[in-house]
Amino acid sequence: MAPGNTVIPKYYRISRDIIGRIRAGELRPGMRIPSENELIQEYGISNTTARKALHEIEAEGWCTRVKGKGTFVRERNVHRSANRILAFTRNMREAGFTPSTTVLDARRVDQGYSAIINGRRYAMAGPVYKIHRLRFADEIPMMIEVRYISMEFCRSIEAKDFTGSLYDIYEKDYGLHLVEIQQMLSTIMLDPVTQRFFDLSRPVPAFRVEGVTFCGKEMILEMEDSIYRGDMYRFSVRARPEQGRAAD
Amino acid sequence: MAPGNTVIPKYYRISRDIIGRIRAGELRPGMRIPSENELIQEYGISNTTARKALHEIEAEGWCTRVKGKGTFVRERNVHRSANRILAFTRNMREAGFTPSTTVLDARRVDQGYSAIINGRRYAMAGPVYKIHRLRFADEIPMMIEVRYISMEFCRSIEAKDFTGSLYDIYEKDYGLHLVEIQQMLSTIMLDPVTQRFFDLSRPVPAFRVEGVTFCGKEMILEMEDSIYRGDMYRFSVRARPEQGRAAD
Repeated sequence: MAPGNTVIPKYYRISRDIIGRIRAGELRPGMRIPSENELIQEYGISNTTARKALHEIEAEGWCTRVKGKGTFVRERNVHRSANRILAFTRNMREAGFTPSTTVLDARRVDQGYSAIINGRRYAMAGPVYKIHRLRFADEIPMMIEVRYISMEFCRSIEAKDFTGSLYDIYEKDYGLHLVEIQQMLSTIMLDPVTQRFFDLSRPVPAFRVEGVTFCGKEMILEMEDSIYRGDMYRFSVRARPEQGRAAD
Repeated sequence: MAPGNTVIPKYYRISRDIIGRIRAGELRPGMRIPSENELIQEYGISNTTARKALHEIEAEGWCTRVKGKGTFVRERNVHRSANRILAFTRNMREAGFTPSTTVLDARRVDQGYSAIINGRRYAMAGPVYKIHRLRFADEIPMMIEVRYISMEFCRSIEAKDFTGSLYDIYEKDYGLHLVEIQQMLSTIMLDPVTQRFFDLSRPVPAFRVEGVTFCGKEMILEMEDSIYRGDMYRFSVRARPEQGRAAD
């Protein structure tokens, strides 16, 4: 697979060029990108090539075609910091959205729950309380989550209101302090059922976030398995040198 | 979008059940999952439903069908910690793979480079040195990266060998210390050209990692724009409470 063996098609090079301008901030969200005719003139290409380039840019999610008006750079995404212990509710408010929640299901699971996260198996003895929620920002479905909550740490949790932040319930109602969250991010295609929950007519890639939250050393308060829309979310992470040894 | 409005099809429920057993570690990598006939007996379903359930499990990447032998739980993925400053080379060695690298392109870019990462625009004045590499683990193409390196901090970098860790070059050849990496993860479908580099016959979701690396306060040593195969990679992150305020 030497570089010389792969011929990069013309439409693709042009799409990279336009995407580069978007990424560099030269073309900003809401701005019109060059039309088919403008691409033909600017690059001296055929209309087939221009159309393929525009299609590629749109297919990769950088812009949206508005019939009769042109193709526009897409709106900004929601950023979620993976370094912070951050409730959906606060994350959305910080991003300037109004959060809301639909509870899809909530029930006691007597056999408990377990999952492998970052190569280690974490298990919660039953009973746990399972809450399945769809979460919105300004009425847009953004994220679907399943949380498994320790009923040992949170007695009578079934009586609570689940339309807000669970973190608030843990802290204010049970006096618990979250000390650490371990999460594993994978990237998946939305399955047909989740796609319907998100009101999407076509499959899009998404983040799957599996996590375990501790309220003390080795004390599991909850585990989760959530899907974040890949067309709306970006995860930010910050890495610093490990103590006691240099980075490699 | 009340829960009662969405009927969950039978094949889907069964696929969740099997995936749940894989995730719980009851079905481990390399183990055979129930065959079509076993599913028909176990759940009392039609062969169409059994086939759809198996297809769904496979489509979501949990297992691989081996002709005439059965369907097997897929091998473990590579975990990459987003909290550590970790070279690809060391990450692969720690995961038990032999890393190797193909340099696709390396050239001086006089106009510099800039990108928006986690909502902030970072810019490197030119000239920067651009290195485009395809990186392998045990001969499997895992990741494709573009790195833009400061030629102010790394004079004569063009004379170096780029088949190993760039972090090694920064530290050993230039005496630089990496103090922080900011990264932004998004999830994308592989574009046709990248898909070909990964020897994939079908499009798969992937992680895109855009990052900026500092060798001192506000001193940008390099920026990157990389694609990690979503069918092979998991990112792990750890969140801890922010200093001076409680988690929300």
